[in-house]
Amino acid sequence: MKVLEDYIAKYGQVKPGNVLKVDSFLNHQMDVSLFNEMGKEFKRLFADTEITKIMTIEASGIGIACIAAQYFNNVPVVFAKKSQSVNISSDVYATKVESFTHKKTCDVIVSKQYLHKGDKVLLIDDFLANGCALRGLMDLANQAGAEVVGIGIAVEKGFQKGGDEIRARGVHLESLAIIESMNAETGEIKFR
Amino acid sequence: MKVLEDYIAKYGQVKPGNVLKVDSFLNHQMDVSLFNEMGKEFKRLFADTEITKIMTIEASGIGIACIAAQYFNNVPVVFAKKSQSVNISSDVYATKVESFTHKKTCDVIVSKQYLHKGDKVLLIDDFLANGCALRGLMDLANQAGAEVVGIGIAVEKGFQKGGDEIRARGVHLESLAIIESMNAETGEIKFR
Repeated sequence: MKVLEDYIAKYGQVKPGNVLKVDSFLNHQMDVSLFNEMGKEFKRLFADTEITKIMTIEASGIGIACIAAQYFNNVPVVFAKKSQSVNISSDVYATKVESFTHKKTCDVIVSKQYLHKGDKVLLIDDFLANGCALRGLMDLANQAGAEVVGIGIAVEKGFQKGGDEIRARGVHLESLAIIESMNAETGEIKFR
Repeated sequence: MKVLEDYIAKYGQVKPGNVLKVDSFLNHQMDVSLFNEMGKEFKRLFADTEITKIMTIEASGIGIACIAAQYFNNVPVVFAKKSQSVNISSDVYATKVESFTHKKTCDVIVSKQYLHKGDKVLLIDDFLANGCALRGLMDLANQAGAEVVGIGIAVEKGFQKGGDEIRARGVHLESLAIIESMNAETGEIKFR
């Protein structure tokens, strides 16, 4: 998606350790005009897909998911919660997700009330790197008997394995911008 | 706001310990149509206020803040992050917030890049009980030299002290629904 690539090229900062900072418009400060363009593009990419629910994970996916929902007939948006509690209650589905940014594992939960058999779920998130968060969300959907009919990502790090692994499972995954390579020394970012 | 009170009366659940569960439409599953009605109402209530930025705190405030921003000329939305890190870097403003729900204190941070002197900030959050989160956000704005020109809350627990304390400071605080009392045994909810 040209406009998102332009934002990344203009405002993104490449940091050592394969970190791409896009927090001026995507995941700390949020540009809602851009999110609307992204929502329209997700609708175009998943126009032929029946979607009954959008699911994301706190925190950075929530804004994108809510704005996008407006282009999908305002379907309910559910965000999976990162839980620090030792005891997982019986009224939630739970899975474990390893965070690339924070180098730690956390429990991720969703209430059984808001994810059901028969739900056709579009997963939305801001970033896709190694795919841990997405695999966690897919696991939650699977536990509920819900079907993941699509995945919409803002920025995919194409040089990490997450995206290709998930596509190999046959899931319809669309990333609005895919970083082919980036260089912390020169700041250069190449898109696929 | 009638429509929000109707949602609370219909879908809200009163639990022991002054807990009001509204996670079927507000803070776990999210009803984006309702959020749009709330956004319009915030605009009506703050129509005469110049606002250059919306600030909220992760995670439940983010969706409401992003949808609301659409009614305020798509001003940037910044969400303060709850940090578990021991070391607070010098490029963020930091404060401490005690969570009513989780009974613990956490550091809340916002990048100095996204909050400045001269910013006229509308704070938005899903809940107001004892006001700890809001006081934390006001402290962050104060550190940055930004001005909090208004606070928009979805649900205020009027029987806790947070709202009255903040109004007593002279801040323009608007809550779309104020719970006067609630009863976990009967499930009854009275609005102010």
